[in-house]
Amino acid sequence: MQKSVLVLHGPNLNLLGQREPQTYGGASLDAINRGLTDEAAKAGYSLQIFQSNHEGELVDLIQRHAPSSAGVLINPAAFTHTSVALRDALLAVARPVVEVHLSNIYRREPFRHHSYIADIAVGQISGFGPDSYRLGLSALMHHLNTVTP
Amino acid sequence: MQKSVLVLHGPNLNLLGQREPQTYGGASLDAINRGLTDEAAKAGYSLQIFQSNHEGELVDLIQRHAPSSAGVLINPAAFTHTSVALRDALLAVARPVVEVHLSNIYRREPFRHHSYIADIAVGQISGFGPDSYRLGLSALMHHLNTVTP
Amino acid sequence: MQKSVLVLHGPNLNLLGQREPQTYGGASLDAINRGLTDEAAKAGYSLQIFQSNHEGELVDLIQRHAPSSAGVLINPAAFTHTSVALRDALLAVARPVVEVHLSNIYRREPFRHHSYIADIAVGQISGFGPDSYRLGLSALMHHLNTVTP
Amino acid sequence: MQKSVLVLHGPNLNLLGQREPQTYGGASLDAINRGLTDEAAKAGYSLQIFQSNHEGELVDLIQRHAPSSAGVLINPAAFTHTSVALRDALLAVARPVVEVHLSNIYRREPFRHHSYIADIAVGQISGFGPDSYRLGLSALMHHLNTVTP
Amino acid sequence: MQKSVLVLHGPNLNLLGQREPQTYGGASLDAINRGLTDEAAKAGYSLQIFQSNHEGELVDLIQRHAPSSAGVLINPAAFTHTSVALRDALLAVARPVVEVHLSNIYRREPFRHHSYIADIAVGQISGFGPDSYRLGLSALMHHLNTVTP
Amino acid sequence: MQKSVLVLHGPNLNLLGQREPQTYGGASLDAINRGLTDEAAKAGYSLQIFQSNHEGELVDLIQRHAPSSAGVLINPAAFTHTSVALRDALLAVARPVVEVHLSNIYRREPFRHHSYIADIAVGQISGFGPDSYRLGLSALMHHLNTVTP
Amino acid sequence: MQKSVLVLHGPNLNLLGQREPQTYGGASLDAINRGLTDEAAKAGYSLQIFQSNHEGELVDLIQRHAPSSAGVLINPAAFTHTSVALRDALLAVARPVVEVHLSNIYRREPFRHHSYIADIAVGQISGFGPDSYRLGLSALMHHLNTVTP
Amino acid sequence: MQKSVLVLHGPNLNLLGQREPQTYGGASLDAINRGLTDEAAKAGYSLQIFQSNHEGELVDLIQRHAPSSAGVLINPAAFTHTSVALRDALLAVARPVVEVHLSNIYRREPFRHHSYIADIAVGQISGFGPDSYRLGLSALMHHLNTVTP
Amino acid sequence: MQKSVLVLHGPNLNLLGQREPQTYGGASLDAINRGLTDEAAKAGYSLQIFQSNHEGELVDLIQRHAPSSAGVLINPAAFTHTSVALRDALLAVARPVVEVHLSNIYRREPFRHHSYIADIAVGQISGFGPDSYRLGLSALMHHLNTVTP
Amino acid sequence: MQKSVLVLHGPNLNLLGQREPQTYGGASLDAINRGLTDEAAKAGYSLQIFQSNHEGELVDLIQRHAPSSAGVLINPAAFTHTSVALRDALLAVARPVVEVHLSNIYRREPFRHHSYIADIAVGQISGFGPDSYRLGLSALMHHLNTVTP
Amino acid sequence: MQKSVLVLHGPNLNLLGQREPQTYGGASLDAINRGLTDEAAKAGYSLQIFQSNHEGELVDLIQRHAPSSAGVLINPAAFTHTSVALRDALLAVARPVVEVHLSNIYRREPFRHHSYIADIAVGQISGFGPDSYRLGLSALMHHLNTVTP
Amino acid sequence: MQKSVLVLHGPNLNLLGQREPQTYGGASLDAINRGLTDEAAKAGYSLQIFQSNHEGELVDLIQRHAPSSAGVLINPAAFTHTSVALRDALLAVARPVVEVHLSNIYRREPFRHHSYIADIAVGQISGFGPDSYRLGLSALMHHLNTVTP
Repeated sequence: MQKSVLVLHGPNLNLLGQREPQTYGGASLDAINRGLTDEAAKAGYSLQIFQSNHEGELVDLIQRHAPSSAGVLINPAAFTHTSVALRDALLAVARPVVEVHLSNIYRREPFRHHSYIADIAVGQISGFGPDSYRLGLSALMHHLNTVTP
Repeated sequence: MQKSVLVLHGPNLNLLGQREPQTYGGASLDAINRGLTDEAAKAGYSLQIFQSNHEGELVDLIQRHAPSSAGVLINPAAFTHTSVALRDALLAVARPVVEVHLSNIYRREPFRHHSYIADIAVGQISGFGPDSYRLGLSALMHHLNTVTP
Repeated sequence: MQKSVLVLHGPNLNLLGQREPQTYGGASLDAINRGLTDEAAKAGYSLQIFQSNHEGELVDLIQRHAPSSAGVLINPAAFTHTSVALRDALLAVARPVVEVHLSNIYRREPFRHHSYIADIAVGQISGFGPDSYRLGLSALMHHLNTVTP
Repeated sequence: MQKSVLVLHGPNLNLLGQREPQTYGGASLDAINRGLTDEAAKAGYSLQIFQSNHEGELVDLIQRHAPSSAGVLINPAAFTHTSVALRDALLAVARPVVEVHLSNIYRREPFRHHSYIADIAVGQISGFGPDSYRLGLSALMHHLNTVTP
Repeated sequence: MQKSVLVLHGPNLNLLGQREPQTYGGASLDAINRGLTDEAAKAGYSLQIFQSNHEGELVDLIQRHAPSSAGVLINPAAFTHTSVALRDALLAVARPVVEVHLSNIYRREPFRHHSYIADIAVGQISGFGPDSYRLGLSALMHHLNTVTP
Repeated sequence: MQKSVLVLHGPNLNLLGQREPQTYGGASLDAINRGLTDEAAKAGYSLQIFQSNHEGELVDLIQRHAPSSAGVLINPAAFTHTSVALRDALLAVARPVVEVHLSNIYRREPFRHHSYIADIAVGQISGFGPDSYRLGLSALMHHLNTVTP
Repeated sequence: MQKSVLVLHGPNLNLLGQREPQTYGGASLDAINRGLTDEAAKAGYSLQIFQSNHEGELVDLIQRHAPSSAGVLINPAAFTHTSVALRDALLAVARPVVEVHLSNIYRREPFRHHSYIADIAVGQISGFGPDSYRLGLSALMHHLNTVTP
Repeated sequence: MQKSVLVLHGPNLNLLGQREPQTYGGASLDAINRGLTDEAAKAGYSLQIFQSNHEGELVDLIQRHAPSSAGVLINPAAFTHTSVALRDALLAVARPVVEVHLSNIYRREPFRHHSYIADIAVGQISGFGPDSYRLGLSALMHHLNTVTP
Repeated sequence: MQKSVLVLHGPNLNLLGQREPQTYGGASLDAINRGLTDEAAKAGYSLQIFQSNHEGELVDLIQRHAPSSAGVLINPAAFTHTSVALRDALLAVARPVVEVHLSNIYRREPFRHHSYIADIAVGQISGFGPDSYRLGLSALMHHLNTVTP
Repeated sequence: MQKSVLVLHGPNLNLLGQREPQTYGGASLDAINRGLTDEAAKAGYSLQIFQSNHEGELVDLIQRHAPSSAGVLINPAAFTHTSVALRDALLAVARPVVEVHLSNIYRREPFRHHSYIADIAVGQISGFGPDSYRLGLSALMHHLNTVTP
Repeated sequence: MQKSVLVLHGPNLNLLGQREPQTYGGASLDAINRGLTDEAAKAGYSLQIFQSNHEGELVDLIQRHAPSSAGVLINPAAFTHTSVALRDALLAVARPVVEVHLSNIYRREPFRHHSYIADIAVGQISGFGPDSYRLGLSALMHHLNTVTP
Repeated sequence: MQKSVLVLHGPNLNLLGQREPQTYGGASLDAINRGLTDEAAKAGYSLQIFQSNHEGELVDLIQRHAPSSAGVLINPAAFTHTSVALRDALLAVARPVVEVHLSNIYRREPFRHHSYIADIAVGQISGFGPDSYRLGLSALMHHLNTVTP
């Protein structure tokens, strides 16, 4: 049976392509999701993909879908820096997590340098625009294939 | 007429019993709620009990139910450390609050040592697992019986 | 065609007039909104007004209504100090923002001295009770009329 | 008898219109003062207006003129961030104070984020260019008319 | 054979009932101790109770009496915030500790927000006046009955 | 009946005259005490004078002798910077306190710049060698004669 | 020939007796100066007394009068916390300095806990209202008589 | 002509496979380098690969080889946290940089959370063991192909 | 026509040669000024030189004389560390500024390590005694001749 | 005549061998003392050895015995981090001090990284278990033989 | 076969005896090395001794020689406070490390109070001049003989 | 005999003229060195000039050449902010040091505001591009001619 990965996009990522293209690039979220789905399929994985502007909804989604997923690929966006609830949800479901960011968070405001997710994730990828997602999915599938077969 | 107490459980507490039992114990939230209801009944109190992963929902619940309650027993979980909105809602309804935590928050990550609720609560109880709830309810009812008859 | 302004009230502001009148004054939110609508009409502006206790809902509202508005008047209340998601939504829609506070946030707890909105707003008005809204709307319309005609 | 308001401009504001127009706008201090005097007259107030580059002179002016004024409208400029003596003078005369800033001080150097005046003022208005003065006068007169009739 | 609990009261608690009743309540230490002894007896526990204003004496008492006790109930009072020696003594005897405070230490001076005991205790109870002791004893006995039978 | 003042000398002050004369001067504690007794007598006050190297003993002395004293003159020495228990004892007995230091504590190690007593004392005198005691007694008697007659 | 002492009063002290009597007492600066002059005369000292709200004027006064004075008694008021120029002037003239404060600066806003003068003064006296001046003069004359005869 | 990428390994990475395998994995540096060379070749890139325990040598290598390279893939290891010289060398040669780490630096000692390279790199990848290198090379080549063709 | 340079000396520099020669050297301010005038003349520059102990006067002098000067050579002395008003005046006149210090400010009290002028100056020279002035003038004239001809 | 060394053991060290052997080793304090006495005797020194859980008692012991000792070997244990009184007592008696710790204090809680004794001691030895004492005594005797003969 | 110990001297220690003798003593490094070799020989150990001013060279030396040594005696000198690379090299080779310092680093500049080596060493010895080396070797050999036989 | 000055250029300065000309100017290091050699020759000094990207090499160069030099002119570049070893080497050779920087380090990243060299140098010159070197050499020769003839 095909392994599944839960892909979560945090607040304001639904605006991708419209919002501040100099910071976030011009690709839409749909285009990114299609690209990820293709990559996953090639590697024998299926994806469940959600976006929400609501912290509580993301917690609900993690609780509901992570248990049946092999791992979680998440761009927590603004919640990276403010949400202990997301951290706790990810801790609770105990699945390997890969954290990605479109922009290089270390080039931006100091409050964006701290992540409540980084130290509970397998790893973090930041700064490569939409390519961060491709790399993150690749990293997560590699991790799932080698570390937790 | 029976006095009522509002009992609020913050994010991820719906997973109790499943999630990290070494940290949070093996009892389910339902079991805890049943125990609390029994204790309250013996002391002549009724309980209104809610759990939510949504900060806004908890604010709504406080606004809606606290005015008809004698006091609030709350385990804000992750929101303890991040929610000024919960603090403001509790300040707005002006009811005695008792804050409880399953785990000993002073043994965990430094960001869990600070609470936005503690200094507006009657008191705080932390570290006794599900027994924290029993103690918190007992403390609140004692407070209501003696300080605000 | 009439220009429109988006007016957003953050968490617990629905309780205005009931909650801690010594801090927030005795006027209800409805009364404030009516006053604002009248002032706007005189100056040839229409208003779209929302209140929410949910951070995610406020993000949704900004995404949905700001693009068709000339500017945003916001009292982020508790989210002033905790929400990067609101900041990001306002950055994404790229509309002039005026931030208002009923109470003087510099007289209150230290955590209320920092705003995630102030440095991305045109300006901030704090401390004049309900009059802060009138001043904020006046400031925003003046800005829209002179800086971004 | 007409009520009087003391208007104080701190250091370097005499250069307005000449100095860094991209930060402070192109209006001269005289033009601003004329506008304020007109607005005040319409509302039945007279103004006493002073500018000084000398902290001690501003303290003297507050001591001399505030007792016969109903309130103080002040743009402390650079002294906002360094003068405890101004704070003490304003505390000593015990008149309502409104603090205004042309530029948005929260967008500038970190040392400009702290004000020695804000927590003893009725409120603070920052970022609207010369319009900050009009708003500040309006706020002060509103306060004088409603809170301290 | 009956299990014994060591109860320790830190500096100035001998003044209870006389000292600052608005902060610490009107009950005397003797009354509190009698109440605790009754509660313990009902649950089949005996108590050994001491109060001292001397840090060294409290260390001696812990060394002497904790080894023959099942657990320690301690209100370290001022030593909460300054005594590493008490912490070390409690670590050395390796008994379950419950820390209690009459006043809500999170409402008081910042230096009272840190405890040298909290992270080595089972849990902490703070803010319920003399009732904190009753709750603490209940929590400790519950812990002893369930976790370390 | 003659009013009495409690005079307390903290740790190591028994060594005065022997210890580091370049820092603390050459007068012995006995000589200082005799001088204070004479000054007090002239003003119609009697003194009760104690020195101790034990924090707990100083707490005991405050509890035992302050209630029958009109005020407390204290040089807490090293305990100035480390003892919350002394602070609490002085708060508990609610007598006017004057804090004195032989050396200028603001010229010494940074940890000596903070006092747990200063903000609960009437005032603090530091840096005048043995004359600090004479000034402190004079200040305390003046305070007792004028503020608390 | 009679020794002279320079007495300096910082900003807003000319308002003494009028300004915030609950903080600074009801005595006028003139009354305080007369009392100091009498005390000095008895001890064979004359005084030169100045008050200014201008930092630069106080620096000028120190440069002009300190060289012919045996010592300086100064209440720097607000400049205590902000003026390096006063510190440098006092260092430059190399006379013994005694720093006094009417209010207990350690009970007030945190920014009042630091003094730019304290570590270059002989000593500091704070909190005794107008009596702080009497004590300060006494301390300075004692110092001049014994340490620098 | 084939594009070239400069690959730099910082101090102690020559021990890979021998040193702390639980932290850094069991692959040797040679194996990693061979893998990278293969991946690069497939994408039409050649690699120049160096390892050094000497900060100065790494600076020399960057100065010598970066100008003829299209980009730099670097695992600065310990120098991540201490070397401004490496940062300056990378700034000087003005080539796109991708920073990789074997271990998740946000799970380790606090001094490892700060990087002198991150904010001048295109992006950072951390935590995936040897796979971090593969992902980093992929990210860099993608960046070179799309952003700087 | 000859270019002019504005030379400003901050507080207490009028005492040069008399004040703390071990820190500031034995040369008088007049001697330094004569030396500077000679150096300037040789290079075809005239100087306008002022000293003041008054922050406001220095602001006035900058406003009055800088617009007709090619550049400003300033030793802000104590105001280096406390005056935002000087900074703002220098920003307002938009002339090249060179900041000089007689003593090495990095060897002195920590509060002297920060300058409100340094980051808006062309450069800073500190520690060479009166020679700092000669170097500063040379640097400024070099800058004027090469960068802003 | 034989030289004497004062050996002081701080709080809880009487429990050595019983308490947390994984941290402090299995040797009893008596065994350590016997070993030290033998080593001292071989080198022509006698020892006076005390242990106390009371800070005041340790201060008394230093005052009483240090003056007749050539040096002090001290393991201040918990008082290392909290006792200014011990520091002052050691300063007062002006004898060479060697500070020893059984455990490596730099591997433990951050509050154990700071010592009030280290900067007034000849040197510090930490981390070698009971061997720390042997090394400390050796270091002290070497110091006494070479530096202060 | 004889056990070997690796002895490493950090930067500038080659100047011992010439450099700042008041801080580091008058013994040359050669003399110290000869003394250590003699001590080691008596205890059946041989030494490999190196000094370098190059961080990278010390890393190389650790990688090359530590694997064949039983332990490492290191005076990292300036690198104590700046080198994560040394720390990582010592972690990588997994040998017992003893850290020594000639001067008492806790008496010197604050940046010398932190060591990147202390918490990964068996223990630290600081302040005894050349005798620190003798003690360190003794401590290391004792550790090797007892803990890791 | 001609006096000699040691001139040291830190890491990446060999790239001068090529690297970031907007920050460091367009002059090559060779051109700067020739200019310095000419200036020195005119004043009767010879120069020994070195550049290195290796901290250890710079330490070696200081040890080897400073003893035969009258003073040291150093641009430590990146090592300014990270190298205690350079500081120690300069302290060890005890020659007057002048620190220069091409760019104004107070306008750049916060980590560039601190120098490990400034407080042990005669003085510091920063911000004048290549002219900083000319000024620094002039300052050093002036110092050598007047202070240490």
